[in-house]
Amino acid sequence: MTEGTSRIDAFSDGVFAIAITLLILEISVPHAGVEGSLWTGLVALWPSYLAFALSFFVILVTWVTHHDLMRLVRATTRPLQLANGCALLYVTFIPFPTAVLAANLGGSEVSTAVAFYCGTFVLGSGAFNLLVATIARGQLFRPEVDAQTIGRIRRGYRITFVIYVATTLMALVTPLLALALNVAVRLHLLRIRYQPAPSVPRQEAQLTP
Amino acid sequence: MTEGTSRIDAFSDGVFAIAITLLILEISVPHAGVEGSLWTGLVALWPSYLAFALSFFVILVTWVTHHDLMRLVRATTRPLQLANGCALLYVTFIPFPTAVLAANLGGSEVSTAVAFYCGTFVLGSGAFNLLVATIARGQLFRPEVDAQTIGRIRRGYRITFVIYVATTLMALVTPLLALALNVAVRLHLLRIRYQPAPSVPRQEAQLTP
Amino acid sequence: MTEGTSRIDAFSDGVFAIAITLLILEISVPHAGVEGSLWTGLVALWPSYLAFALSFFVILVTWVTHHDLMRLVRATTRPLQLANGCALLYVTFIPFPTAVLAANLGGSEVSTAVAFYCGTFVLGSGAFNLLVATIARGQLFRPEVDAQTIGRIRRGYRITFVIYVATTLMALVTPLLALALNVAVRLHLLRIRYQPAPSVPRQEAQLTP
Amino acid sequence: MTEGTSRIDAFSDGVFAIAITLLILEISVPHAGVEGSLWTGLVALWPSYLAFALSFFVILVTWVTHHDLMRLVRATTRPLQLANGCALLYVTFIPFPTAVLAANLGGSEVSTAVAFYCGTFVLGSGAFNLLVATIARGQLFRPEVDAQTIGRIRRGYRITFVIYVATTLMALVTPLLALALNVAVRLHLLRIRYQPAPSVPRQEAQLTP
Repeated sequence: MTEGTSRIDAFSDGVFAIAITLLILEISVPHAGVEGSLWTGLVALWPSYLAFALSFFVILVTWVTHHDLMRLVRATTRPLQLANGCALLYVTFIPFPTAVLAANLGGSEVSTAVAFYCGTFVLGSGAFNLLVATIARGQLFRPEVDAQTIGRIRRGYRITFVIYVATTLMALVTPLLALALNVAVRLHLLRIRYQPAPSVPRQEAQLTP
Repeated sequence: MTEGTSRIDAFSDGVFAIAITLLILEISVPHAGVEGSLWTGLVALWPSYLAFALSFFVILVTWVTHHDLMRLVRATTRPLQLANGCALLYVTFIPFPTAVLAANLGGSEVSTAVAFYCGTFVLGSGAFNLLVATIARGQLFRPEVDAQTIGRIRRGYRITFVIYVATTLMALVTPLLALALNVAVRLHLLRIRYQPAPSVPRQEAQLTP
Repeated sequence: MTEGTSRIDAFSDGVFAIAITLLILEISVPHAGVEGSLWTGLVALWPSYLAFALSFFVILVTWVTHHDLMRLVRATTRPLQLANGCALLYVTFIPFPTAVLAANLGGSEVSTAVAFYCGTFVLGSGAFNLLVATIARGQLFRPEVDAQTIGRIRRGYRITFVIYVATTLMALVTPLLALALNVAVRLHLLRIRYQPAPSVPRQEAQLTP
Repeated sequence: MTEGTSRIDAFSDGVFAIAITLLILEISVPHAGVEGSLWTGLVALWPSYLAFALSFFVILVTWVTHHDLMRLVRATTRPLQLANGCALLYVTFIPFPTAVLAANLGGSEVSTAVAFYCGTFVLGSGAFNLLVATIARGQLFRPEVDAQTIGRIRRGYRITFVIYVATTLMALVTPLLALALNVAVRLHLLRIRYQPAPSVPRQEAQLTP
């Protein structure tokens, strides 16, 4: 009824790699001569560069997080495929709020744009909480992952969800601070790593193709 | 003359992952100030979000289905590569009817758009029926897959084809009900899983790289 | 100095899968109400559908051909990576002549568009001839591939090159016949398969991840 | 704490394959009849073809270089994932300066466009220097890679950085010579290959899936 996670991992990796690369398509070339020099045009695109770099970083951290979570999973089931699909739906959606952010970062509607951008992370965090809950409910964690570690993982995902709700609300008041907080949260996330057992990483390195 | 399915699987996975990620490119950023606030513009895009989520779900279920079918195949031949190519042609086409649907979901031509969208699934189901027939005719099912299971698989694919023809015709009258039925059919498809033999999934997990 | 072809294969597969999926982005949604009904608009796009299906088939056959050639290669070198890069440059270029073809298939400049489309295949065939020559000159064929087989492969690639030059010239006079001939050539190519030795396919199936 | 580099390699390969294939999307179809014949329009796109081929070559060489570097790495850590992310950020950015180059190669602002294009390589080289430094500082080179080889690799990356700074400055004066120098540097880079030890390539071929 169950099987290894290699094909779901490969599919997810593909989606992450494509979503992170599509971000660049949202930046369009400035036309020299129309509004000042080409140089002025390239500099005026700073909101696009910032939004591009920000979303690149967000998808990269999400990939690392997804990678770390799936390392602890022993098998694939239908509910897992659906929950993972929800997480990937969020990842593929990111280029759109990124483009909205880039188009409005220097304008008068910046708080709406940042709230929409951060609101996407609330939905994304919801999808990842669903994924973790599906893994836990289906008892799909590897046997080396003890109940305490599972508890810590689930708490961690719930706390992140609450933080994303908070930054979205904050974006309506101080949008740039909300963006900065999002980066800080993700830099912090990178420092956490759930260790199932000393021997697993090595074993994993052999299993993963 | 024949070989394993690992490379055709990897190629197909790549196509699925890209098609599912390209869907977002069809949603274009609303321009604040032109027609009301940015918020109004983002809300007015609901047909795009709906079409995006719908097609994401369709491609995800198709990937799961394809995955499940190819698990039962022992070898690749030229006819199989061509039939699989037809199935992938359908998958890569999906972003276009999705965009047509998104552009017309709130307009006066919604029934044409939904019929075109559902009509794509008829062609797609035809391609998958061709794929199953090619596998059966070439005797490419793994030895563990008995004649009865093959019969059930082929009947299942034929029934789905008939349902898609029916929903396409229904779309001309009640488009939204036709869309809802499509989701229901796919949720049902996710519940079916052909079991070749108790030992195969484990063996598969080792074979798949 | 040399290594297996697994990573160059994976990279090439990725490029093939992306190029074949990007083709759909060239078809843009008709706007209902502007020029007749949505249905009229969708039907008027037949040159886009035809160009899309044609190029999909071309890339699919090229992938099968590339796949079959690389199966016979035992190691990767720098010249091979460069020659393979030329072949992939051709593959990634295909969406552009496809769009040119779609935009002009029903117009007055159809012969220029078809000649440009077929001319791309001349360059592509040149790149594949370079690839085969690089493999032969670097003695990178597996030991099971005898000199006679290598000779037949190289002759086959040279003949295809000449045919593509001929169809490009023919396109200037009878464009649609030239397109039909291109399909026929590729259907014929699918029937040829170079057999190194009876035992290799099985061995390959184990080596390829 | 550490694991093999197979998944970071697969993710990076995906990003390289997508970035190299997206380049073609920047070339838009000329409209026949508007400005002379279709043939004139296709010929007038030569800056787009040149920029496309140039960036294809740049990404291809970067992929080969990345591939060669990661072959020498024994494990993945968080800092490595972040530094590799910076290198991939550069790779995914390349389609944008390519489009800027194509739009201005035949115009009056060619020196700004080429300087922007070459300036991207300075940032990219910076990211790769960071990647090498992260590998060295984390002692992530395979045990077979001796201190002397590591020294040569790091010196090589630093020299390349200096050359890219020089060509960017040169672009402000003689843009086309700067582009030619960039090609020359990369052709030279292809000739260098760091050998860890005689037995490693073979072993690598077995380890890499």
